[in-house]
Amino acid sequence: MTIAIRKFNASDADFQTQLTAVLAFDASEDASIDHAAAQILAAVKARGDAAVLEYTQRFDRLQADSIAALEIGQEELQLALSQLAPERRAALEAAAERVRDYHQRQKQECGSDGFSYTEADGTVLGQKVTPLDRVGIYVPGGKAAYPSSVLMNAIPAKVAGVQEIIMVVPTPDGVKNPLVLAAAAIAGVDRVFTIGGAQAVGALAYGTATIPQVDKIVGPGNAYVAAAKRRVFGTVGIDMIAGPSEILVICDGTTDPDWIAMDLFSQAEHDELAQSILLCPDAAYIAQVEASINRQLAQMPRHEVIRTSLTNRGALIQVRDMEQACEIANLIAAEHLEISAADPQRWADKIRHAGAMFLGRFSSESLGDYCAGPNHVLPTSRTARFSSPLGVYDFQKRSSMIQVSEAGAQTLGKIAAELAYGEGLQAHARSAEYRLKDVTK
Amino acid sequence: MTIAIRKFNASDADFQTQLTAVLAFDASEDASIDHAAAQILAAVKARGDAAVLEYTQRFDRLQADSIAALEIGQEELQLALSQLAPERRAALEAAAERVRDYHQRQKQECGSDGFSYTEADGTVLGQKVTPLDRVGIYVPGGKAAYPSSVLMNAIPAKVAGVQEIIMVVPTPDGVKNPLVLAAAAIAGVDRVFTIGGAQAVGALAYGTATIPQVDKIVGPGNAYVAAAKRRVFGTVGIDMIAGPSEILVICDGTTDPDWIAMDLFSQAEHDELAQSILLCPDAAYIAQVEASINRQLAQMPRHEVIRTSLTNRGALIQVRDMEQACEIANLIAAEHLEISAADPQRWADKIRHAGAMFLGRFSSESLGDYCAGPNHVLPTSRTARFSSPLGVYDFQKRSSMIQVSEAGAQTLGKIAAELAYGEGLQAHARSAEYRLKDVTK
Repeated sequence: MTIAIRKFNASDADFQTQLTAVLAFDASEDASIDHAAAQILAAVKARGDAAVLEYTQRFDRLQADSIAALEIGQEELQLALSQLAPERRAALEAAAERVRDYHQRQKQECGSDGFSYTEADGTVLGQKVTPLDRVGIYVPGGKAAYPSSVLMNAIPAKVAGVQEIIMVVPTPDGVKNPLVLAAAAIAGVDRVFTIGGAQAVGALAYGTATIPQVDKIVGPGNAYVAAAKRRVFGTVGIDMIAGPSEILVICDGTTDPDWIAMDLFSQAEHDELAQSILLCPDAAYIAQVEASINRQLAQMPRHEVIRTSLTNRGALIQVRDMEQACEIANLIAAEHLEISAADPQRWADKIRHAGAMFLGRFSSESLGDYCAGPNHVLPTSRTARFSSPLGVYDFQKRSSMIQVSEAGAQTLGKIAAELAYGEGLQAHARSAEYRLKDVTK
Repeated sequence: MTIAIRKFNASDADFQTQLTAVLAFDASEDASIDHAAAQILAAVKARGDAAVLEYTQRFDRLQADSIAALEIGQEELQLALSQLAPERRAALEAAAERVRDYHQRQKQECGSDGFSYTEADGTVLGQKVTPLDRVGIYVPGGKAAYPSSVLMNAIPAKVAGVQEIIMVVPTPDGVKNPLVLAAAAIAGVDRVFTIGGAQAVGALAYGTATIPQVDKIVGPGNAYVAAAKRRVFGTVGIDMIAGPSEILVICDGTTDPDWIAMDLFSQAEHDELAQSILLCPDAAYIAQVEASINRQLAQMPRHEVIRTSLTNRGALIQVRDMEQACEIANLIAAEHLEISAADPQRWADKIRHAGAMFLGRFSSESLGDYCAGPNHVLPTSRTARFSSPLGVYDFQKRSSMIQVSEAGAQTLGKIAAELAYGEGLQAHARSAEYRLKDVTK
């Protein structure tokens, strides 16, 4: 049974409508989930450890006398690492090293120590960059527990200089994922608690007797976790609330169609809501990719997920030329953008909005997911228009530095007082005027 | 009548409790306000211009046939600028120039063009930095309409390279603030609409027939605006939801006590919830500041606001020494931190968390509010633990760049495939393996 993947042409009269329909995704939150998350957060804020224990027993069927009993020590993390198959351990360590290298470069190039400059009158202005003190990383339990996500969330925090990284991971019925624990050991996570859901978010945001309050919570989670993160935003920092994963492939029609079909699969296999779109100026090539999709599908263990995803949210779109492909890519602002073409840089220069760009035939998205180096936590659902990959900068913040000289206070004081009087803020004006030599109190 | 400002000592047994009580601030949102904002947003999303017109008529008593009739053209902005008193115009222009200079430096030092590096096997990795396309700036109407805020929000966006800046400002009963319009002219705002409230946030977030959709909304607003911004977060970017303004002064006891008293006033005069705290190791000096507060209060036009603010939320805290003052300052993570002391840099080096630091006796906070150069939009309510002043970086975003060479794909492909199989994602693995020379499909 062939896949009924949508096919249309950018020159169709109703192209904009068709594209909007493909991209449409109902991100509205379930009011009952939001309400439940709010109740759990309130209980954790009020009753701390006791509430977290109760919810963990109820939702994860984990019986424990204390939160301390739910902590996984460093020995257990190291044990998980030492018990990995050697080739898997080597791959995980190689990936971690490349991710670390890239993020160290990110820190070095920008944001390691701010700046400072002195004006003619001796006034010094600048910006100081400091790491967050303590960060919480949420790692989902069950099927979506990805060791690569542990690396991608923890390593930038570590590179930024965060002093303490606290990981929470639910272990329903006590089942632990050894790959996740091994990744935590490699990434240098400081403490791990086997708790999850909104209760884990609350514990990290407010702190309990056992779990220290963090300054920011990052990492993916289910709808309850997302609702809880939204609610604690302001008490702590949070990363973006991620939508379904997306790939947009721009291909000039010269890459092996089987490669492109598999790249589309690699996104579609994530879940039924994942989105895979191809933009190509060559109708015959699009037909080849479609044929390859139908030929290769049956071999894939996750073919049911892939079929649903491609049928409901996939699209093969014929464009006038590569220029038009780039214009449409800027509208879509995809999480992952593959430019599978000769001279990919030429087209990359025209792209303003994308989470990550994969240039050339050999840059399959999956390389970026695991080990190219850049982060795989990327803005989804068109948020690449205004947000960035997770990075070292997410674990740093800036403080403005203002040291006005006596001479500087004479010039600046007059300007500030003039504007403060204009805004009706007399104490602001007087405070500036007190620093003027020729003004008496 | 003297002010009953709280006084306590960091060596008190119950110091932590006292400090927590002073800092406590109920940021919980009013459910009815949130509900009203949600309804307004839904109406604007569904009915666009028509809904915005209805709400504007209802809330601002402004009758108009179309949203176009609510747009203020560039001529009117320029007219407002030309009609300013010369000294006020000069002050506003001088402030804008200094703010522009600082933010240009910010762009130059960090974040102007990302980075790129080539590995031994020819793989190129990097980060591309691009400005947002279009930004919305919310400017409150009425008493909190500050022209300085227009400069502080619009100029960093302009410096970042944002193509179009759209300002919304409610004008209840049609009353326009000429200083705000003049500031918009100076800052280079592209379009101005006289709309406000949740309806303006909705119009910017979703776009209407007349008002273009923006990528990010910044700027302060009332509780409805804050609730609406929280709700559209994800559809567009938003800045932080600001809490009450705060100043923390660390003084070694050698600055004129009248200066410090006035600095505390300058924060307290903002509103009844604003917070002013002094940390000082010298009990006699604290008494002098307190006497100065009581002596100077009556002269201040906003003495009632100042009295309420200092009584309910102010504190004069005696510390053991300057080291302890710095430790406490890190707990408070204040929006504005004045270090009014000899050798202020020595103490600044110990500060990890603060929105902006004002070093030395001549750096009164009000200079930073208007014209020192750094932004006056700063993290409040302890959020300086994880967030930064508004800056050029808030109007830029990054894209990861990954160009894997054929040789690179051989090494990376094996690592990625190993990890993908470990995570049960076979299409990811196959997609990487297709790029290996020695693997057949």
